[in-house]
Amino acid sequence: MTEPLTGTLYGVGVGPGDPELLTLKAHRLITSAAVVAYPAPDDGDSFARSIVASLIRTDAEEFAIVIPMKTERFPARQVYDDASRHLAAKLEAGEDVVVLCEGDPFFYGSFMYLYERLAGRFPSEIVPGVSSIMSCAAVLKRPIAARNDTLTVIPGPLPEKELRVRLERADAAAIIKVGRHLPKVRRILEDLGATERAGYVERASLPQQIVLPLAEAPERAPYFSMILVYMGGEEWGPMNG
Amino acid sequence: MTEPLTGTLYGVGVGPGDPELLTLKAHRLITSAAVVAYPAPDDGDSFARSIVASLIRTDAEEFAIVIPMKTERFPARQVYDDASRHLAAKLEAGEDVVVLCEGDPFFYGSFMYLYERLAGRFPSEIVPGVSSIMSCAAVLKRPIAARNDTLTVIPGPLPEKELRVRLERADAAAIIKVGRHLPKVRRILEDLGATERAGYVERASLPQQIVLPLAEAPERAPYFSMILVYMGGEEWGPMNG
Repeated sequence: MTEPLTGTLYGVGVGPGDPELLTLKAHRLITSAAVVAYPAPDDGDSFARSIVASLIRTDAEEFAIVIPMKTERFPARQVYDDASRHLAAKLEAGEDVVVLCEGDPFFYGSFMYLYERLAGRFPSEIVPGVSSIMSCAAVLKRPIAARNDTLTVIPGPLPEKELRVRLERADAAAIIKVGRHLPKVRRILEDLGATERAGYVERASLPQQIVLPLAEAPERAPYFSMILVYMGGEEWGPMNG
Repeated sequence: MTEPLTGTLYGVGVGPGDPELLTLKAHRLITSAAVVAYPAPDDGDSFARSIVASLIRTDAEEFAIVIPMKTERFPARQVYDDASRHLAAKLEAGEDVVVLCEGDPFFYGSFMYLYERLAGRFPSEIVPGVSSIMSCAAVLKRPIAARNDTLTVIPGPLPEKELRVRLERADAAAIIKVGRHLPKVRRILEDLGATERAGYVERASLPQQIVLPLAEAPERAPYFSMILVYMGGEEWGPMNG
C-alpha cells in the first residue's frame, strides 16, 4: 500500500514588510508555488501578498482569504471554513499550498485558523519569519530585551486596567496592534513615568515607516504600529530610541 | 566640506540555525562583506559563523570576539572594549563591518555591547533576523500567542521565586536560555499544573533538533533550548505541541 499523494500545507512568514527581510526558504517556496493563498481585507490589497508580489509565478493560482473588516467577532468562522474547504481540495489533488503570513505565521497570526482545520489531514510545515517586533527594535536602534530581563508582548486592545497592570509588572514591553488604542496606551505610560523610555514605530521596514519617540508620535496610529518601552529591570547601555 | 568616508557597522541576524532561515538582506550583506566579526566561545566554534560559513568570502577578514566561558560576570567589558577598538580601526579606514548575530541582533544578543561602543561614531544598521522563539513555535507546530493574549519571554536563569511569579501571571510564555535551569523550570510548571501545555525544543531548525512534550524532555538541556507554554488566557484551537 502507498500513502495517498496529497500536497503539503506551508505557512510561510513573509516578514514585516521589506521584501529583503524574506527568508531564503520563503523565497524558494513562494517562487515555486503553484497555489498561493493569503489574507486580504474586503476593501483593499493583501499586505502579505504585496511584500512578495514580484515573486509569485504568473501561472500560479492565487486565493485571497477575504476577512470582512466589519466583523468584530473573531474568528470569522465561516470564512476559514470556506477557505479550508477550497484549499483542502487542492491538497487532496496533490498540490502544495503556500499560505503567505505577515511577519511570522504563529505569532499573533490568522494562519492558525487554517492550520487547525487542515493540519490533521495533510502534511504541513511552518516557515518562521522575521517578526515586526524585531523589525521595530532594528529601526528604533535599541535592544528589545537584554540579559535576564523579561519581555512582555501586550496587545493594545486589552482593557485599560489590564494593560496598566501588565506594563507595571514588565521589564521591557512591546505593545502591538496599537492603532486606535494609542491615546489609552499613552495615558498609561505617561502615568507610569515611562514616556521618555518609549519608542513609536509605524510600518517598520517599509519606505513609509515612521520612527519617533513616543512623545512625538502622531495623534492617530494605523493598525500596523507598535510601541517598544523599557520599564525597568536590569540596565543596559544608552538607547537612541 | 565632505563627510569623512567611514564604513558602516551592520548587526546582522542570521536566524536560529537553518541556513535557509537567513534573510535575503543578510545573505546579500554577508556574501559581499570584506570584514566579518562574530562571537565565539573560547573552547569551540562560533555558532553564528557556522550558520553562514559557506557564504563568507574566502578573502574576507574574519574577527572572532572570544567570550571567556568561565566569566559569569557580564558584560565582559574588556573583550568588547578590545573588539570595538579593532573594528573601529576598520570602520575609520572606510571598510564596512558585518557582525553576525545568532537569531536577531537586538533580542537578548551580545551585539548591543559593540553597538553601544561604536554606534555613536559610525553609521550603523541593524538587520533583524528570525528569532529562535518563532522557530521553536514552528517546529512544535503550535501558535506562540493569539488574539489578545500577552506573551511573556522569561530567561531561565531568573531566581525560582521570580520565575514562578512571572509564569503564574502569563497567558503564553517562552522560557529561554533553559540549559541547566531545566529542573527548576520543570518543578514550577508541574506545580502550576502546566506541564501538559508545555513543549520543549533543543536547537530548533538544525538537523539535530529535539522537539518533545516537556514531560518527555531529557534530564539535561543545552543552552540553546527553550520551553513554550500556554498558561491560560483566551482559548484557541487544538495544539499538537
